[in-house]
Order: sequence, then C-alpha cells, then structure tokens
Amino acid sequence: MNEFDFIEKIRARVRAKHDSASALITRHSSLIQGIGDDAAVIRSQAGKDLVVTTDLLIEDIDFKRDTTSPELIGHKALAVSLSDVAAMGAGARWGFVSIGLPPDVWESGFAERLYDGYFSLAEQYGVELAGGDVSRTTEKIVIDSMLIGECDSGRAVLRRGAAAGDQIFVTGFLGDAAAGLRLLERGARVHTASGPKPLEEVSVNRLLLRQLCPDPRVGWGILLGEQQLASAMIDISDGLSSDLNHLCEESGVGAMIDASRIPIDKLVTEICGRRALDPLMLALHGGEDFELLFTVKPENVARLPRKVDGVSICQIGEVTSEPGKISVSEKDRVWDLKAEGFDHFKREG
Amino acid sequence: MNEFDFIEKIRARVRAKHDSASALITRHSSLIQGIGDDAAVIRSQAGKDLVVTTDLLIEDIDFKRDTTSPELIGHKALAVSLSDVAAMGAGARWGFVSIGLPPDVWESGFAERLYDGYFSLAEQYGVELAGGDVSRTTEKIVIDSMLIGECDSGRAVLRRGAAAGDQIFVTGFLGDAAAGLRLLERGARVHTASGPKPLEEVSVNRLLLRQLCPDPRVGWGILLGEQQLASAMIDISDGLSSDLNHLCEESGVGAMIDASRIPIDKLVTEICGRRALDPLMLALHGGEDFELLFTVKPENVARLPRKVDGVSICQIGEVTSEPGKISVSEKDRVWDLKAEGFDHFKREG
Repeated sequence: MNEFDFIEKIRARVRAKHDSASALITRHSSLIQGIGDDAAVIRSQAGKDLVVTTDLLIEDIDFKRDTTSPELIGHKALAVSLSDVAAMGAGARWGFVSIGLPPDVWESGFAERLYDGYFSLAEQYGVELAGGDVSRTTEKIVIDSMLIGECDSGRAVLRRGAAAGDQIFVTGFLGDAAAGLRLLERGARVHTASGPKPLEEVSVNRLLLRQLCPDPRVGWGILLGEQQLASAMIDISDGLSSDLNHLCEESGVGAMIDASRIPIDKLVTEICGRRALDPLMLALHGGEDFELLFTVKPENVARLPRKVDGVSICQIGEVTSEPGKISVSEKDRVWDLKAEGFDHFKREG
Repeated sequence: MNEFDFIEKIRARVRAKHDSASALITRHSSLIQGIGDDAAVIRSQAGKDLVVTTDLLIEDIDFKRDTTSPELIGHKALAVSLSDVAAMGAGARWGFVSIGLPPDVWESGFAERLYDGYFSLAEQYGVELAGGDVSRTTEKIVIDSMLIGECDSGRAVLRRGAAAGDQIFVTGFLGDAAAGLRLLERGARVHTASGPKPLEEVSVNRLLLRQLCPDPRVGWGILLGEQQLASAMIDISDGLSSDLNHLCEESGVGAMIDASRIPIDKLVTEICGRRALDPLMLALHGGEDFELLFTVKPENVARLPRKVDGVSICQIGEVTSEPGKISVSEKDRVWDLKAEGFDHFKREG
C-alpha cells in the first residue's frame, strides 16, 4: 500500500466513527476539516481555551519492538498525550499522529495495528483523529502524538498556581510503571492469551501493562479543572521527584512529602522484595506512571470526591514557602528530595 | 546541558521575543500559556478558525547531515509547515517542535543551531514557539514541526472547492527544488561565505537553497484567503502531478494543463541541458518547491494582484468536469498526467 492509499484508509475509519455534521451544532469548538487537506480546521468558540500538547516516542528509547506490540504502542502514544491534557484539567478533542517507519515495518502492516490501538483508546475518550504525517525512516520507528483539548476559558490548571499551605495529592499508585520496566528488562513479557494463570504471573502482567499500556487519569483531570478544585497540576511522566520539582519551580514554592503516605501498590512492594529493589525509590523517581500530581487549597479539600472512575487519591504532603526546597519525612528523619526522574540526556554516575 | 536546562533556555529566548501581556489584548486568539507546562493554552476568539498542520522530517530521508546545516534544517522544519498554513489561506501563529537527537549530536550544540534557524524564520512571519518535546534517538535526527494558524471563520481555503471552468494558477517557479536535489546528489554543496563567485556557482547555489532553504508563499496564501480569491488551494510539496491530483480528487474535478505555461526558471532549463535532465519532468513531478497551486473562478481572475512579496503567478490551465482526469497539452499532443510525485513508500520500477 502506498502512503496516500494508507491515509485514505485511515480517513475512512475516522469518517465511519464520526459524523462531522453533528459536530457543527455542538456548543464546543468543532472540527470543520479533518484528514485530507494541508491542515485541519477548527472553528473556535468564544469562552473556550484550547490546550495543545505533543509527545515524541522513539524506538529503543521509549519502547522496544520485542517487548510490546503495535497496538500497545498506538495506545501509549495517545495515552501520554491524554495524560498531559488531563493535567491541564481539560477534555481531549482532536488528535494528530505523525509516524515514521522503516520500509520493512511498513510492509508488515505495523501501521494499521498501531492505529487499531490508537483508535481503541481514542473512542473511549471521544478523541477524533484530525491529521498527522507519514514518513519513512531508515531503521527505527518514530511516533509523534499531538493532542488538542478544550476547557472553559481560564479554567486550565497550570503548574504555577500552588501556594504555601496547599495540600499535595496524587491519583492511583506510584512506582508501578518503573517496576514493570525493571521486569521487562529482566525478561518478563506480557501475556495476552486468556485462561487461568499462576498468581505471580497475573501480578507481573499487571505491572507490565502499567508500563506498556498506561491508563491516563482523564476523569480526574476534567473534574479537578471543571470544579476548580486544583490550584496547580502536572502529570507524573518523568517521576514524582522531577515532576514535583517542576510544579514547585513554576509556582515558586517548596514541598514537604510524607514518605509513609506515598501510595505504593503492595504488589510492587512484594515484587521489589523478591528482586532487591527499593519500592520507595521506584515511587519517588520512577517515571511513566501517568498519575496526576495536584495541589488543593485547604478549604477545598472536603469537596474532593473519594474516587473517580474507580481511581482513588492520596494526600502525600503539603506545599511550603521556601522556593525549590522539597523535603521528605521518613520515620524520624527528614531529607532533601533531588529531582532524579527521567532525563533523556542525563549523564550516568 | 540536560533536557530541562535546554528547554528553559529555549523558553527564555521565546520570552525575550514576545511580551505575552500584549497578546492578551489583541483581537485574535491569544497564547495564555506557552512553553513550561503540560500543554500550551490558547484562548479562542469567536469568529476565528484555527488551522493545524504537522510535518515530520527524518534524517537520511528528508535531509542529509552532510549536505545541509542545523540552521537550514530548523528553517526548513518551519518553512514546510508555513507552506501548509499558507495553503489554507491562513496566517501562522504558534509553532511546536519535537526533536529527537542521538547523544553525540545533542552534545555538539546541534539543537541550539537548529532553533537559531527556526527562530529566524519564525520572527519573519510572527510565529511564536509555544511548545514541543525533546527526546533521544539511537542514531538519526528526527524533527516534527507542528504549526497552528488562524483565519476568519469560514475563510480557510480547502482542496475541495474547485469547479469546472476555474482557472489554475501556481506561484513562482516549479522544478527548482528538484533540480537542487539532483545537484546535491551529484556532489554540489551550498556556499555560505560571501565574496565574488563565478556565475555558474552563484546559479547552482540558488537552486541548492531552493531545496535546502525553501521560502514559503505566506503573503500569497493570506491574500488569497482573506480576499476570497481562491476556490481551492494546496501547496506543492510532493510535486505538481501529485498535488494537482489531490486537489482534483477532493474537488471531484479534472484539469487540463498547458505545458508551455508551466513556469520553469531559465536557470533550471540551462542546468538541465548540461546534465541531461528534462526540466518539464522536474517541474511536473519534482517535489518540495513549496509553491502554491490554486484555482480561481473566472470572474475573480481580474482581481488577482500581479505580484505579492515580489513573487509572481502563472495561469497554467483550467479545471475540467471529468473527475480525476488530468491532461497536459504539449505542442500538438495531449497526454494524461499520472501522479508521479514523491511517495515515501512507492515501489521503484
């Protein structure tokens, strides 16, 4: 299949899912022109803000072909962008995907399967694929996911709104994805076949999927934005230590974290125990959990729901006034937390 | 320099250029939050449409490190997107750049020089860098450029508006970039040093720059959109034969092209003569000229200016009613034009 036939096929899939006529009568901004022109056209709506994020995934850096599947890569490409839009307190609307594939991968039907994974998640959250680009590479797979979301004007939750005294929360559990990555590196592989399995295998599979098939906190993001509950928010993609540092830097504040309150799945604790890994270090510095980290003014804490979409939250600490100083209290000692999450160009040692 | 320091440096450069306070009082949509959060935030304005395009550039497919420079790559990454926005009849507003670099290239200061080239062109057309992503690759350089433009609601010029009887125009000259590519492949290199040069060398340099440093037709695009002069438009990125085919397919029309009216620079004719190349074939099928191809209703032809920004236009043919049939009249014969422009996954032979 050539490039243009492929684009037409993707376009037909999008058309089958969305009736563009119905989009024109919504109260939201709407897509006037999707795939099939030099650019997509979005009709703006007064009283709305658009949020725009872009995430680059590179083979052998962000994923390995032999530890995942095209469908999981397509899922993850959208999931990481959905997580960014959620972290702005916005709802996702239009996606753009640029893919670069080596010729043999193109011939193998990889792209169709990647879009299967993308579309499956897009459908779940009402995202319409509005454009993108297709290119050839010499060897490695490259995917750039761009996502546009929308919220009411002025309701986007930035990193810079935290103030001393605000309470710090995270959704879900931390360190799962990092534990999953360690398991992948030690040779574990995802099982997709159904049927009964030993408990250990089921547990391992769950952690592998937290790494390979992240579940962005879309419901929490929209709720925290729409109800103006979060004073600042970021998604945990690089790791709690790095992302909390970003939030504090932008807000000009510090933070005190209570180590005992960091939500660590007991499965992670168990698996770490058997493999000589420290679960707290995974939770603090491990990346790609795609949980939300947010701050809430004390008077708003009582308005927080306990769960959204079955996902609970934990209060892990408090915002302090000393800019950039992030401390962790662990039993009877208090230590400074350095940003040691993921950095593409960090020197080792 | 690590990834986050680099992003801060880029952010400081953007801040130095743009005063975001002034953006808030414009009649246009405005950027509320640029680089430095999970996503950029754009405040929508009633009566406006946004156009969104994305272009992926891959090393050794779209450019070679030894025939260009980081600055030229940065220029080209934005130029190809500016060309897409121009082809929608819109003005460019906000750019997003995702780059993936191997560690040695990162260490060499390549990224800073790439952004020099990007910013230089961005400044010329009032584009503000609003976000992006930075990643590592194992070997090759990858750049994804995303650009958001804006026009009055309903004024975007799509590919699908052409009707039988409309006249077909192109800006500038065709085949220059393809000639430049052939010269690069035969070992010619761009000279950047000033001083007198032999005429042949100056001429070759001009064609090389048409390939490596394209000049998007921003002024023409905005004029044709704002004054509602074009019924359909596309930029010539894959080649006239392919892009005219795209426009005709979307509009459900055909076209008759007069070969003698296709604007070919006499430099291309000269250089082709000396190198056994057919200038007409370069003009019909060569890609990356980034000229605009547009159709105009007969009653609007007299309203077209002769030149915009020093660039003239040529009427090369007429839209016909038979869907998909594109013919070329050349002296006393008429032949069918097949789409033979660039396709990333075209099989040879």
